[in-house]
Amino acid sequence: MTTSNAARPHPTSAPAGASSASSTYQPLGESKTGGRVPRVTLPVPIGNVASQTATDMQAARGKAAFDPAKIESILRDGRIDNDSRVKVVQTLDKDELFGDWKKRMAHMNREQKMTMSHKACRRLLEIAQRDEWTTHEIVDAAISLDLQSPITIHWVAFVPVIMGQGNDEQVARWGQRAMDHNILGCYLQTELGHGTNVAGLETLATYEPSTDTFDLHSPTLTSTKWWAGGSGLTATHGIVQAQLIINNKRFGPHLFFVPLRSLKDGKLFNGIAAGDIGPKTYDAFGGLDNGWVRFNHVKLPRDNMLAKHAQVKKGGEYVRPPSDKLSYGGMIFIRSQMIDRTGWMLSRGNTIAMRYSLVRRQFRDPDSKDVAEPERSVLSYPSLHRRLIPLLAKSYAYIIAGRRMRTLYEDMAAQLDSGDTSLLADVHVASSSLKAYCTKQALDGIEECRQALGGHGFSAYAGYTSIFPDNAPTVTYEGDNYVLAQQVGRAMLKTAGELDKNAGAKVSNTTSFLGALKNKDAVKFSPPTSPAEWLKPEVYTAVLGLRAARRVADLRADLSTGRRFVDLSWECVEVARSHAEVVVNAWFTEGVSDDSEGFGSDATYWLNKLVVLHALTCVARDITPLVLPAAQGRGLAAYQSGSAILTPESVLHLETAIRDLHTELLPQVIALTDAFGWTDWELSSSLGRKDGRVYESLMAEAEGNPINHPAPKDSSNPDNLGHYQYGSSLVGKHVAASWKAEIEPLLRTQNKLAEEGPIKGDGSKL
Amino acid sequence: MTTSNAARPHPTSAPAGASSASSTYQPLGESKTGGRVPRVTLPVPIGNVASQTATDMQAARGKAAFDPAKIESILRDGRIDNDSRVKVVQTLDKDELFGDWKKRMAHMNREQKMTMSHKACRRLLEIAQRDEWTTHEIVDAAISLDLQSPITIHWVAFVPVIMGQGNDEQVARWGQRAMDHNILGCYLQTELGHGTNVAGLETLATYEPSTDTFDLHSPTLTSTKWWAGGSGLTATHGIVQAQLIINNKRFGPHLFFVPLRSLKDGKLFNGIAAGDIGPKTYDAFGGLDNGWVRFNHVKLPRDNMLAKHAQVKKGGEYVRPPSDKLSYGGMIFIRSQMIDRTGWMLSRGNTIAMRYSLVRRQFRDPDSKDVAEPERSVLSYPSLHRRLIPLLAKSYAYIIAGRRMRTLYEDMAAQLDSGDTSLLADVHVASSSLKAYCTKQALDGIEECRQALGGHGFSAYAGYTSIFPDNAPTVTYEGDNYVLAQQVGRAMLKTAGELDKNAGAKVSNTTSFLGALKNKDAVKFSPPTSPAEWLKPEVYTAVLGLRAARRVADLRADLSTGRRFVDLSWECVEVARSHAEVVVNAWFTEGVSDDSEGFGSDATYWLNKLVVLHALTCVARDITPLVLPAAQGRGLAAYQSGSAILTPESVLHLETAIRDLHTELLPQVIALTDAFGWTDWELSSSLGRKDGRVYESLMAEAEGNPINHPAPKDSSNPDNLGHYQYGSSLVGKHVAASWKAEIEPLLRTQNKLAEEGPIKGDGSKL
Ligand SMILES: Cc1cc2nc3c(=O)[nH]c(=O)nc-3n(C[C@H](O)[C@H](O)[C@H](O)COP(=O)(O)OP(=O)(O)OC[C@H]3O[C@@H](n4cnc5c(N)ncnc54)[C@H](O)[C@@H]3O)c2cc1C
Ligand SMILES: Cc1cc2nc3c(=O)[nH]c(=O)nc-3n(C[C@H](O)[C@H](O)[C@H](O)COP(=O)(O)OP(=O)(O)OC[C@H]3O[C@@H](n4cnc5c(N)ncnc54)[C@H](O)[C@@H]3O)c2cc1C
Repeated sequence: MTTSNAARPHPTSAPAGASSASSTYQPLGESKTGGRVPRVTLPVPIGNVASQTATDMQAARGKAAFDPAKIESILRDGRIDNDSRVKVVQTLDKDELFGDWKKRMAHMNREQKMTMSHKACRRLLEIAQRDEWTTHEIVDAAISLDLQSPITIHWVAFVPVIMGQGNDEQVARWGQRAMDHNILGCYLQTELGHGTNVAGLETLATYEPSTDTFDLHSPTLTSTKWWAGGSGLTATHGIVQAQLIINNKRFGPHLFFVPLRSLKDGKLFNGIAAGDIGPKTYDAFGGLDNGWVRFNHVKLPRDNMLAKHAQVKKGGEYVRPPSDKLSYGGMIFIRSQMIDRTGWMLSRGNTIAMRYSLVRRQFRDPDSKDVAEPERSVLSYPSLHRRLIPLLAKSYAYIIAGRRMRTLYEDMAAQLDSGDTSLLADVHVASSSLKAYCTKQALDGIEECRQALGGHGFSAYAGYTSIFPDNAPTVTYEGDNYVLAQQVGRAMLKTAGELDKNAGAKVSNTTSFLGALKNKDAVKFSPPTSPAEWLKPEVYTAVLGLRAARRVADLRADLSTGRRFVDLSWECVEVARSHAEVVVNAWFTEGVSDDSEGFGSDATYWLNKLVVLHALTCVARDITPLVLPAAQGRGLAAYQSGSAILTPESVLHLETAIRDLHTELLPQVIALTDAFGWTDWELSSSLGRKDGRVYESLMAEAEGNPINHPAPKDSSNPDNLGHYQYGSSLVGKHVAASWKAEIEPLLRTQNKLAEEGPIKGDGSKL
Repeated sequence: MTTSNAARPHPTSAPAGASSASSTYQPLGESKTGGRVPRVTLPVPIGNVASQTATDMQAARGKAAFDPAKIESILRDGRIDNDSRVKVVQTLDKDELFGDWKKRMAHMNREQKMTMSHKACRRLLEIAQRDEWTTHEIVDAAISLDLQSPITIHWVAFVPVIMGQGNDEQVARWGQRAMDHNILGCYLQTELGHGTNVAGLETLATYEPSTDTFDLHSPTLTSTKWWAGGSGLTATHGIVQAQLIINNKRFGPHLFFVPLRSLKDGKLFNGIAAGDIGPKTYDAFGGLDNGWVRFNHVKLPRDNMLAKHAQVKKGGEYVRPPSDKLSYGGMIFIRSQMIDRTGWMLSRGNTIAMRYSLVRRQFRDPDSKDVAEPERSVLSYPSLHRRLIPLLAKSYAYIIAGRRMRTLYEDMAAQLDSGDTSLLADVHVASSSLKAYCTKQALDGIEECRQALGGHGFSAYAGYTSIFPDNAPTVTYEGDNYVLAQQVGRAMLKTAGELDKNAGAKVSNTTSFLGALKNKDAVKFSPPTSPAEWLKPEVYTAVLGLRAARRVADLRADLSTGRRFVDLSWECVEVARSHAEVVVNAWFTEGVSDDSEGFGSDATYWLNKLVVLHALTCVARDITPLVLPAAQGRGLAAYQSGSAILTPESVLHLETAIRDLHTELLPQVIALTDAFGWTDWELSSSLGRKDGRVYESLMAEAEGNPINHPAPKDSSNPDNLGHYQYGSSLVGKHVAASWKAEIEPLLRTQNKLAEEGPIKGDGSKL
């Protein structure tokens, strides 16, 4: 594609000294559908500032002390292996619909997003068939699109429930149809009036022996099912949580498989009313029809109650599940999947932030004598890298601890299948604790990354438009984080109580710190006397454990003064946080060590630096219980009132150790973020470009931005929306027309002066 | 409006016992344009849960121990007085375009929002002319719409610069035209490559003596002006910051008045290229054309340089401003306006959160014996009210301290006009400190409020869609918060240095705490020995001061070890935070006391509770420096190494005092949020409804939600978009058509099974 200056909006006599080469821009990537490839059109010299960025990025990569690919191939070996992931992402990147999908979505309204979401689902299944993708590949593809769609929710919330809660016959009857996208499902638990309090759900499923059916009914306004993704407009079937009633007796919430819409014509079945619940905040989840659904005495065959655990026999006999806790499995499953996922999302925000901060330069060093010296990379400022590098460490921590969480879940599920519930309690607590902690830390971290980028971080081209909003509800669903914190608090009290009774009671490595409550020797520790001592695993592990134990001691002391547990929900928050930090630290450490062969010794060295930085950052987050001597009755066995765990000097050493770790890690952060393996297409970020050409990219997108070009003929069809026009000589040309229609009348609203032409002396006549 | 069951989508035999009255819903407000008034259509019994909410809200209001209107009338007496504000808001509420404006905007894409924004500007000016609104009323109206538009930026960033930086002749020439919206302006400072580092701007304004003009030029890609609101598509004029060059000598950045687009036809003048920079993150600022602008040797008359301070004489003589600091005035002005503004935004999020949390009930009390007892208000859980009530205190704190900030600015500006710069330094530091602190606290607080609301907080109908995104850039613009923190750090060092030299040096009440560095008696304090002692102003004020002094002592110690100031930007963050907390506490206290007569003694009593809670929350935010004895060389005069400021027992008393304050304030929070005076139209929130009818409102909006109704005929015209259809019997009826087009083919993508009709045994044949 050659560019002709004559056709430009800004035909300029090049400033003296600027060679033509300096104003001819290289394309920013490979050509996509319709030859669209971002490039700067305006014929202006690029200048030193913009041309420096690619150089800076290369130089940073040149400093890598390890091979990022080795980390990537292990970390990305998840639901699908890394090669498959790369294949899927490349296919989407090259696809006609998906190549510029993310950019286009920013130009759609809710209704248009929904249409596009359905189109995307169809296209995904087409590609899957063409390329013989596995189901996991389809799900991965849908997630890569930043798409909350009927298909993602079908896989996340419908299929697993059938598979996990249906008996064999039910799995056979519905499971394969669901796996084949023959039916499309949703999961209807939450109601307008009840979410967290599942026992308070109002929807009724009354067994009627005469017909051997259930009568499914929504008796009140607040019993309307609310929020279920896919239920509003699209799902053909739903799993409904309802109060089981047999012979006027309540048996609590149970799950029912319910046909919602005719497969033939999509009409709601008789007795069912449903619709979309409306737009979501921050324009999130636009492609998904979270819905409201009401049942008016809908009849269901008895076999439609999911019966892996509890059953209703013909005539109404109720068969209890062997253990009350068995149905926890599903909840734990989803939570256990959220830990690494949330780490990945943080890693995405962090990759963008590191790359941009590296190439963004602002202010010459005050000591610099040479005016020609370039300004400093903003990443070199401690106030910036001390915000970003701990978030890099957290990304790794949650990804790696999350991988362990998944394994542990699988072990537990296998045990459960053979009737062994011994792992259940521990896995339940760990998954609650980590879900509550990691989702919040990651969500805050993503927005922190964005805020760290100055003005350009606020552009949609920064690449945060979907990650923060789409992750915002992770703190709420699958157990509100503050409610989960109470479960962790309760579990800690229980284990502590068991240790009281029997100092030798079995504890896991994530609860052994509770030994410190009563046993002076349970946790060996003395305050570090140098920064170097802080780097030792036994040191920071001990401190994290002691702090968690202190928080539990406080909780017990509060209870012992007669306060009720239900009134201690605030105190539970810190108990849960400090517990989660113990667990993440333990699993992050183990995870790095277990895979150290695959990572190779160089990468392992740097990952271990991140382990330490993560742990020390956790310690520093909440120093008070470590430096404040315990008040009467609140001390640990080894630290009775009057004695603190840390000394003033050890806290200074901690700060020095953390600062030094930042300095050491700083040259490796580009390689460490490269190792996450995010592609430019996935990030869809001008600031996070792998090649560092941020300014050219911002300019190219801004020029190509549809609003600077004539509106498409048929703007009611979303297929026509959001297309970027790079290299068009018409940029901005049509704008005057809408100005005339929309702005000129505005200037005339209050008086007629504007019609008198240019304002005298304003220079517009020159 | 009578409802006929026959016409409903869900014609139901009412469940036994439900009276028809219980399923006929009252309208949710007064009828607006076209008779649209939200109400629930589905004929279902309302039930106990939903009907309880209005009762709860009334009961809470019944507990008010003071008159909220008295607080409102004082707090809202700002740019315009409260009566005028109420008038403006009511006019918008009743207006045909604006009545349902906020709800509709959630259904527009970027391009549509822009068109609507321009339409809103025209309509605003029409109303202003009809109702003879003042300029301030117009600006208030625009802001009430949650509208970032060419008009708001014109008033915020263009008019004040002309007025503040132009000489008399320039103000006369351009000022009135601007005030009359005869021209529409923008402020072009930031460039693609430089923002914070203003001295590094690349745009050149070269004086050419032969023609007595400036040559305005953008020499490189990164010199492209970026971000200026209004510059992309609409502004007719701009103030451009450019490097002044005379005779090859650089005089640094100066301001130039530059015509951009012809008033006749909106075409860009020769040599100017411009466009919109693209969508913003989280779908924010959709109605504003933040733009990019390039100048290609554009000629400007010499008189177009704003010349209140510096001037260029004919021939090229440069006249320096009397003081280098005079141009700070503008910056301080905008920052000083941001403090109460940010408090207002937080108060809005907080009002919604308090109201919803009050009426949301979840779980019966564990000690309750009566199964018919209603569940607990979620606000009664400490883990919830301890998140929300401190944010209520912060809302008041920033609003009231911000009012003082404005007054102080005005005093300073008056002084400056008479050549007196004595207040300048103090006001500059305070405005930087408070801007950095309050914007961040408020932004985090808004999202915290939203997250506290469980699932419904994620609905657009929660009412957070614009407040978080639109306030997100407040941490960035008008000085990035982390950069401002360094300015505060530097100022603290300077004042501390002055006190070193002369213990009697003049300090204000917001810096007097620095005396504690060297003077044992500067701050009198001993650790509280009971919760009650913590409530004393002299106690918490002293602690806040001592902590700030400790942070400064640390900063000085770090410097004295040879670290450079530029490398201490991280340490400055806490210095600035602790300083800001001293200032906010002082001004909040003074503000309440100064207006106590107007508030009346009852309201003053409760506001003072908030003052205390705010202060204690600030103390609790960062306890470590108070309980950790200082290390060698870091102590305050009265606390040399080894001695801590607080004792373990005093920290327990602090926690008790805070908990008790929450308990005391809890019954007053509805009245205290009512006192902000937000109307339902302003909040546009189903959850924040003043009457508490949250469930009916959510249901009514969800039913009325455009996506549940046939698409408008001409969806390319935004005038047709986003209209809610309440009370339509057709809700959901059309959906099957789009299902057939969009979803059915999806089910057929992978195989043909779906065409075989309902799945055997799924119950859909019953
Ligand atoms: C995007 C999104 C998708 C969803 N998808 C689905 C879906 O597919 N299917 C489905 O069934 N549901 C879905 N949900 C609903 C979701 O599961 C619930 O919103 C979630 O369980 C929280 O419940 P709630 O909304 O009732 O919160 P609430 O319980 O009302 O929480 C409100 C506040 O009260 C506090 N609180 C509540 N109880 C206590 C207590 N005992 N102690 C202290 N504090 C308490 C909470 O911490 C919170 O601050 C979705 C929600 C969202 C946002
Ligand atoms: C919504 C919006 C509207 C705007 N409107 C206008 C407008 O109308 N007119 C206009 O001219 N501009 C406008 N701007 C631009 C705005 O003024 C700048 O974005 C802002 O000044 C920050 O500068 P920057 O973007 O260069 O940030 P940068 O300076 O690039 O900041 C990037 C990061 O570097 C850090 N950093 C930079 N310098 C230092 C240092 N010395 N020490 C430590 N850390 C440092 C920052 O803290 C930040 O984390 C707007 C921006 C936004 C987001």
